[in-house]
Amino acid sequence: METSAMTFKLPPLFSLGFFKLYFRGIGQVMFQGNVWTGLFFLAGIFYGAYTSGMPAVAWGAVVGTLMSTLTGYLLNYPAEKGLKGLWGFNGILVGCALPTFLGNVPLMWLAVVVFSSMTTWVMVGLNHLLAPYKVSSFTFPFVLTTWFILLAARTMHGLPDAGLGTPELPGHFSIVIATDPQSLAIYWLAGISQVFLLNSWLTGLLFLIGLLISNRWAAIWAAIGSALALGIAILYQCNGSDIANGLFGFSPVLTAIALGTTFYRVNWRTALWTIVGIFATVFIQAGMDTFFAPVGIPTLTGPFCIATWLFLWPHLKLDKKILQQG
Amino acid sequence: METSAMTFKLPPLFSLGFFKLYFRGIGQVMFQGNVWTGLFFLAGIFYGAYTSGMPAVAWGAVVGTLMSTLTGYLLNYPAEKGLKGLWGFNGILVGCALPTFLGNVPLMWLAVVVFSSMTTWVMVGLNHLLAPYKVSSFTFPFVLTTWFILLAARTMHGLPDAGLGTPELPGHFSIVIATDPQSLAIYWLAGISQVFLLNSWLTGLLFLIGLLISNRWAAIWAAIGSALALGIAILYQCNGSDIANGLFGFSPVLTAIALGTTFYRVNWRTALWTIVGIFATVFIQAGMDTFFAPVGIPTLTGPFCIATWLFLWPHLKLDKKILQQG
Amino acid sequence: METSAMTFKLPPLFSLGFFKLYFRGIGQVMFQGNVWTGLFFLAGIFYGAYTSGMPAVAWGAVVGTLMSTLTGYLLNYPAEKGLKGLWGFNGILVGCALPTFLGNVPLMWLAVVVFSSMTTWVMVGLNHLLAPYKVSSFTFPFVLTTWFILLAARTMHGLPDAGLGTPELPGHFSIVIATDPQSLAIYWLAGISQVFLLNSWLTGLLFLIGLLISNRWAAIWAAIGSALALGIAILYQCNGSDIANGLFGFSPVLTAIALGTTFYRVNWRTALWTIVGIFATVFIQAGMDTFFAPVGIPTLTGPFCIATWLFLWPHLKLDKKILQQG
Repeated sequence: METSAMTFKLPPLFSLGFFKLYFRGIGQVMFQGNVWTGLFFLAGIFYGAYTSGMPAVAWGAVVGTLMSTLTGYLLNYPAEKGLKGLWGFNGILVGCALPTFLGNVPLMWLAVVVFSSMTTWVMVGLNHLLAPYKVSSFTFPFVLTTWFILLAARTMHGLPDAGLGTPELPGHFSIVIATDPQSLAIYWLAGISQVFLLNSWLTGLLFLIGLLISNRWAAIWAAIGSALALGIAILYQCNGSDIANGLFGFSPVLTAIALGTTFYRVNWRTALWTIVGIFATVFIQAGMDTFFAPVGIPTLTGPFCIATWLFLWPHLKLDKKILQQG
Repeated sequence: METSAMTFKLPPLFSLGFFKLYFRGIGQVMFQGNVWTGLFFLAGIFYGAYTSGMPAVAWGAVVGTLMSTLTGYLLNYPAEKGLKGLWGFNGILVGCALPTFLGNVPLMWLAVVVFSSMTTWVMVGLNHLLAPYKVSSFTFPFVLTTWFILLAARTMHGLPDAGLGTPELPGHFSIVIATDPQSLAIYWLAGISQVFLLNSWLTGLLFLIGLLISNRWAAIWAAIGSALALGIAILYQCNGSDIANGLFGFSPVLTAIALGTTFYRVNWRTALWTIVGIFATVFIQAGMDTFFAPVGIPTLTGPFCIATWLFLWPHLKLDKKILQQG
Repeated sequence: METSAMTFKLPPLFSLGFFKLYFRGIGQVMFQGNVWTGLFFLAGIFYGAYTSGMPAVAWGAVVGTLMSTLTGYLLNYPAEKGLKGLWGFNGILVGCALPTFLGNVPLMWLAVVVFSSMTTWVMVGLNHLLAPYKVSSFTFPFVLTTWFILLAARTMHGLPDAGLGTPELPGHFSIVIATDPQSLAIYWLAGISQVFLLNSWLTGLLFLIGLLISNRWAAIWAAIGSALALGIAILYQCNGSDIANGLFGFSPVLTAIALGTTFYRVNWRTALWTIVGIFATVFIQAGMDTFFAPVGIPTLTGPFCIATWLFLWPHLKLDKKILQQG
């Protein structure tokens, strides 16, 4: 796997080529190793973070991508992977998540620096574990690392956990939610923006445009994924404010892109398969919300990882592409 | 593994052969690919469900087996596996579990249809993961899928969770229990009937007869497994009402059949090994009860899966059979 | 892996050679297959257990090591592994843990006997799972088995759980802690003694001497691991009484020995790698403390296992030794 990397060469640090690789890393959060996609994503992040009064999230994204990418250089990982942007997508999510849930203090930034770097070798390790099963670790290096940090913050006064929910036994929630067309459109786009932990319909729109530049079907499936998940969550009467904030959308968006166009060719059979995958992701999302309620941490993109593994491990032959992310 | 399937051919849908395959799928819950065993099991399920006022559980069993079996046809999985009944046993358990724990509403039935089908490809996927270690996924596709749905029901008003316990911090329970011989006999048979989530001594008896038809030792080990687990649970003073309802019995019953006769040849050495396995299963059962208390979901047959894996992974050479379920 | 065992031969039971193998098993808790290290460790355990009024912990250690070692003989596992002491280290930890957390009653001793034996085949099984990834199961057989027993004790009046914390939702703790040099030195050594679940600075000192006899760098890294973890826990303002009791030290001590000298050669690059590993272990420790709060069980050495796997799975080429524990 790593032998063919011989013929690839990393660009010098902070050269133009480096920034291409950097932005491809941002695009890879939604499986698009495309510089322009990454630029639109980062624009969406900055817009969403600043308008919701959380600029630290935007700068966390910048720092997280940088650290995990530099770690790939430092550890001499195969250039081929770096050039595709595979060193950036976990780091940027750590950089978005920690300032979202934790207080903006220097010790939080130390955690961003260390743990966004750490996602790079955790990814390589988890990819070793998953290689025999022909899947990669997706965003799970980010998920696992960030779960530990957020859980740790509950017992560390040095990491203020003001952005996390209160630990509680599950079962108390309200299903009240506005369902006029305009509100539904906002929830739908919020579901897409929440892939980067932001709640902004315009950010969601910028993400869709970014996807469109790289791969028409990725944009279409992202749109379908969020819309369908919204419908299923309303049908099964889930937590209303979670629905409104797009929290039932982000994992199905990723499942939809992964199954609908990244790992299978686009056709009617794979489309049906992807729709079942979106349905399952909503239940796994709701289930993990319950599971983590007593410790009060978010699922992050864990439901996407689990659902997509469950739908890829069977190695269904629906004209499967020979294509791997990791 | 799947190449030898070439020589096998699936019977047409809803032919006599199809129903043989269907009932073998029910028998495979206790490792018996035997039509008559499956018939006795289904009879036991109908008796237990109707006498306890929960007919939906019986019809859930019928639908669940059907959907997961049809999924095997639809996805073109190897006929050899289907003919052995390996497409039915996870589906029937989903079909029994959801109406047991959730309200009898159309959205629950939609979940039965989708998720009993899903167990078939989750089984194929998990079997891929476990193949290098020479074990199969047992009932874990049912367990994993149903955990997600039951957890999800906690945050979905569309899935009434009246049949689930209240989420609570662990440690509060009463050990009061009647221990006259008649009560003990009822608990013992209830432990066997709970394999299909039913609490009925006559159902337990029908299950034993079903086992006896297929494999004398399977019946003997099921009987020993439930009895021994009952004794250990009383000795260690576990929750009295759980003992009385047979909730310490069903996982040890499955461990006993698996270790005592399915994966090892019957002899004194494997019998000792099986008894230690039953002992461990009771502790794993009690431990998982505690672990899930704060989210208020049942362990399902998870303790059986974990215990049996822990006792098969070491590849002990106790005259091991070359026999695989999956 | 097991073919080369042909040329090795186990000493007769209770011969001098047997006791060498026995004490090597104790030393292997910190990766040292050295008789004298084992003797110093056991001396430290007896001193710590008796001075803190818990003699059952010391005798549990004796019994646990014996049972898991005898199980290796009984199951005919490769002599090569036994001679290195690989059958003792999980058993001794079960023997220390159960009397620490549970009441000193006969049913507890039955659990010590059965489950310390069980760690031997659980280790073999988990090593099969992990072999393709070139790591071993470390102390995880002890961790997994003991988690199940301690969780079970919460619902078994036959296993008094007085030594366990109260189950509670996480987030309530005090960071008050004395930080004069003498107190810090005591916490530092307590962190080392807690590897065997004891809280005694003199025991920590005996453990360091035991390490020094076998491998100078193991002692140095154990000392650094506990000191650095202490500093990080204070910096991030963790639970003060946990810090004072050495509960942030024991897992980083093991991570430090594993990464700093056991699985990598000692040099500046691996030293930096180990320091990052210690940092991560403190967060994983704090995170797992939170995760288990609602069920009120300790993490045991789980954080060490997880952290060390995450730092070994990437197969970094920092002049890696070809050396395996399992």
